[in-house]
Amino acid sequence: MESDQTELKRAVAERAAALVQQGMAVGLGTGSTAALLVEALIRRVRNENLHFVAVPTSERTAQQASAGGILLTDLGAHPQLDLAIDGADQIARGSLALIKGYGGALLREKIVAAAAARFVVIADDSKLADGLDKKVPVEVVRFGWQATDRRIRALGAETEMRKTSDGKPYLTDGGNFILDADFGPMPDPAATDTALRAITGVVETGLFIDMADEALLASASGVVTLTRG
Amino acid sequence: MESDQTELKRAVAERAAALVQQGMAVGLGTGSTAALLVEALIRRVRNENLHFVAVPTSERTAQQASAGGILLTDLGAHPQLDLAIDGADQIARGSLALIKGYGGALLREKIVAAAAARFVVIADDSKLADGLDKKVPVEVVRFGWQATDRRIRALGAETEMRKTSDGKPYLTDGGNFILDADFGPMPDPAATDTALRAITGVVETGLFIDMADEALLASASGVVTLTRG
Repeated sequence: MESDQTELKRAVAERAAALVQQGMAVGLGTGSTAALLVEALIRRVRNENLHFVAVPTSERTAQQASAGGILLTDLGAHPQLDLAIDGADQIARGSLALIKGYGGALLREKIVAAAAARFVVIADDSKLADGLDKKVPVEVVRFGWQATDRRIRALGAETEMRKTSDGKPYLTDGGNFILDADFGPMPDPAATDTALRAITGVVETGLFIDMADEALLASASGVVTLTRG
Repeated sequence: MESDQTELKRAVAERAAALVQQGMAVGLGTGSTAALLVEALIRRVRNENLHFVAVPTSERTAQQASAGGILLTDLGAHPQLDLAIDGADQIARGSLALIKGYGGALLREKIVAAAAARFVVIADDSKLADGLDKKVPVEVVRFGWQATDRRIRALGAETEMRKTSDGKPYLTDGGNFILDADFGPMPDPAATDTALRAITGVVETGLFIDMADEALLASASGVVTLTRG
């Protein structure tokens, strides 16, 4: 069962890896499916003499890619990327609005996705839903986070501070906190995102609206491709 | 001339200090006028047995207030403040829209102002203008700042990275960069603020819209009070 699931994810990763072309600048996501993508790209670099440069969204991805011979760059050298590929925690059918950030790297992932001409999401189809209703990670500045938290809750969410396994507040790469905000079903996630961004102290949200161009999903019947529409 | 100017600022600071009442929780700003405010409050604590608690927007203000016997607190204990008083770099007549952040502390200043039921700006009247046209400090995440900078410039601004006196990038309390964005005259600063906030990688802007309730300004003819209207 586990290996079947991994096989399906691997098929998605292979399909996504095939989108990378010679000379591209590509954003590489973080997570279990993204790790399979990097594996597939390393094979292409070795077997097909593929040359491209990559902007990683995490140290973990950077290490895996670099060890496999993928040339790393950054948004300073390449402020515009041809392509970015990353996972998601929930995907809305149709709009391809996403919830991301359960791994804690939402800010870098969003910056990389925003810099890409084409953003492709890879996941298994358990992440697909008719609408978004999972918790939204909200990255907030430490200073005055309690006041920021109040204002997020005033939007109608229940919030919980993200903790590490030893019970301490989780700190992002930028030294900020993450509040996981439960709005229940969100009929208009774009409005929720705008309202959250308008709160002083909110650095970024895990709502990725109008960013994903397509989704490649592992399903029991194979790889399903969804485009935004 | 210099001492006249300081006398005028001192009169404004006294007037603002008189707004603090027994038992209040008060946000205290940063800068030369704010330092005179803290001085005036210390006098009230000593001479009138005034008791209140203060949330400082900088280490400098915290030290001055604490040394003078003002009791400090934070937004954890007081997520809602009765009053906040701070300076500004430019003030629009009528709307009282502000540009702040030339001192680099825009994020803390904005969080404190946003947490206050009443926000009073203190400045000299050279800061007053018919509309906002000065540079807007924009605090941006270091990761991918070049891509963020591109998107700010795409809004029509010329940008410049804030540097320290030795030519290194200025780092905020949160470890971020500041890009000073010159939009020229801004007919609709609220729209500019919204557009900037919508850019992934932007942490906060120095545009304070619909936040100031009144402004106390030092002018040659005395203290001028403006209310938002």
